[in-house]
Amino acid sequence: MTASRPRSILVLGGARSGKSRFAEGLARDTSLDRFYLATGHAWDDEMRARIATHRTDRADDGWTTHEEPLDLVGALKMLDQPDRVILVDCLTLWLTNLMMEEGRHVDADGAALAAALADFQATVIFVSNEVGLGIVPENKIARAFRDHAGRLHQAIAAQAAEVYFVAAGLPLKMKG
Amino acid sequence: MTASRPRSILVLGGARSGKSRFAEGLARDTSLDRFYLATGHAWDDEMRARIATHRTDRADDGWTTHEEPLDLVGALKMLDQPDRVILVDCLTLWLTNLMMEEGRHVDADGAALAAALADFQATVIFVSNEVGLGIVPENKIARAFRDHAGRLHQAIAAQAAEVYFVAAGLPLKMKG
Amino acid sequence: MTASRPRSILVLGGARSGKSRFAEGLARDTSLDRFYLATGHAWDDEMRARIATHRTDRADDGWTTHEEPLDLVGALKMLDQPDRVILVDCLTLWLTNLMMEEGRHVDADGAALAAALADFQATVIFVSNEVGLGIVPENKIARAFRDHAGRLHQAIAAQAAEVYFVAAGLPLKMKG
Repeated sequence: MTASRPRSILVLGGARSGKSRFAEGLARDTSLDRFYLATGHAWDDEMRARIATHRTDRADDGWTTHEEPLDLVGALKMLDQPDRVILVDCLTLWLTNLMMEEGRHVDADGAALAAALADFQATVIFVSNEVGLGIVPENKIARAFRDHAGRLHQAIAAQAAEVYFVAAGLPLKMKG
Repeated sequence: MTASRPRSILVLGGARSGKSRFAEGLARDTSLDRFYLATGHAWDDEMRARIATHRTDRADDGWTTHEEPLDLVGALKMLDQPDRVILVDCLTLWLTNLMMEEGRHVDADGAALAAALADFQATVIFVSNEVGLGIVPENKIARAFRDHAGRLHQAIAAQAAEVYFVAAGLPLKMKG
Repeated sequence: MTASRPRSILVLGGARSGKSRFAEGLARDTSLDRFYLATGHAWDDEMRARIATHRTDRADDGWTTHEEPLDLVGALKMLDQPDRVILVDCLTLWLTNLMMEEGRHVDADGAALAAALADFQATVIFVSNEVGLGIVPENKIARAFRDHAGRLHQAIAAQAAEVYFVAAGLPLKMKG
């Protein structure tokens, strides 16, 4: 993997699949300056603990961390430089934050992100949870969430140079 | 892909994975006359909206649409011609309809469908939701549903010439 | 596949994906003496029926069956011989049993199992359910369960010689 041209990468996987760790390895392999863009809000202690664990996992490993729960395109533009790799962790938390905002057109936000990818000079790696492979949820918001996630993944994957599906810590290349 | 011999294809994927769109592309690539066999009942407004969206997605694209919620083998036999491709969308809705019928032996219906595949002259493409990769549902009917779905997928996949798993709009060939 | 050196294999898949049947085929292909190590407790009639079905599926097929719900490392050590293949079915039931025990450090048990793999003389095949690809469960114990399962799968997969993901009865090789 070389730093010769910007590109975007999508890393999909289930809960505790090792997708973030795999994405961090991809970022490291680029030899670019590493930026970590966290989308997670700490809504409760459990979430706070998860975020802290993720931070610890990459501690003292050369990452500059930024946080942006909503304006992901804006944050990426602000950080965008050709000598950088930006790891966005994760798209599903971003979707959750968008859905909490009243009157937000979540699919339009997703489409805007996908459309912006071609213009970035940085290499951008997106981590996201695949959530659509279980039983249809009884909860209507959960159904809407997995519809949004599925559509966002399709939009990002269509633009991405590489797409990986991670299970049990092992990547399966779906594109690229 | 040529129209030289009939065969059956199974396209599995999660919610909003792009599986139907991928299956429609496979059908188009055959250059056969395209028939769309919808199994979905509109139980409520949300379902009605989904069905309408699917219809719009293939509007004015040369499809002849039929609907059959229960007697899938009968509908396939009625449409069966060597110059046709029949897209069945989807098996999981068909299973749902069967489970709503009292006294139905759902697995036997699935086995009968799998057994009938070898005799069709048309190319038949089945779309279905993979639903067995989440936590065991607390709801007993949901557990029964994913058992039926898993058994049906195995039975169809064993007979099919090609099997695909679709995620984020990208196909992964599992067989063929 | 030869019996020339011991190794471990992880077979992941969803509910009714055909993962156990595939794992049994792998075991048969080794030509080693086949041991079946069942981890399942029959908590209720439904579970009892599933276990009985699994037993019937391998009936009169040359398997010696043992049962161990908790001390999996101990049971493997007891059965460990170079001319044997041991099929552990399944890791997710084992995790369930561990989580029912008070004061158990489940992730430590998982790490101990992964660490022990290198020392076995038998070929060991683990079957496990992938459970992390649906919506985040509302139930806290379910969330903890899929976290434990994900971490265990990563730990076992890192040590295993081969890892398969099974859907619709079809294996996808992820490692090996």
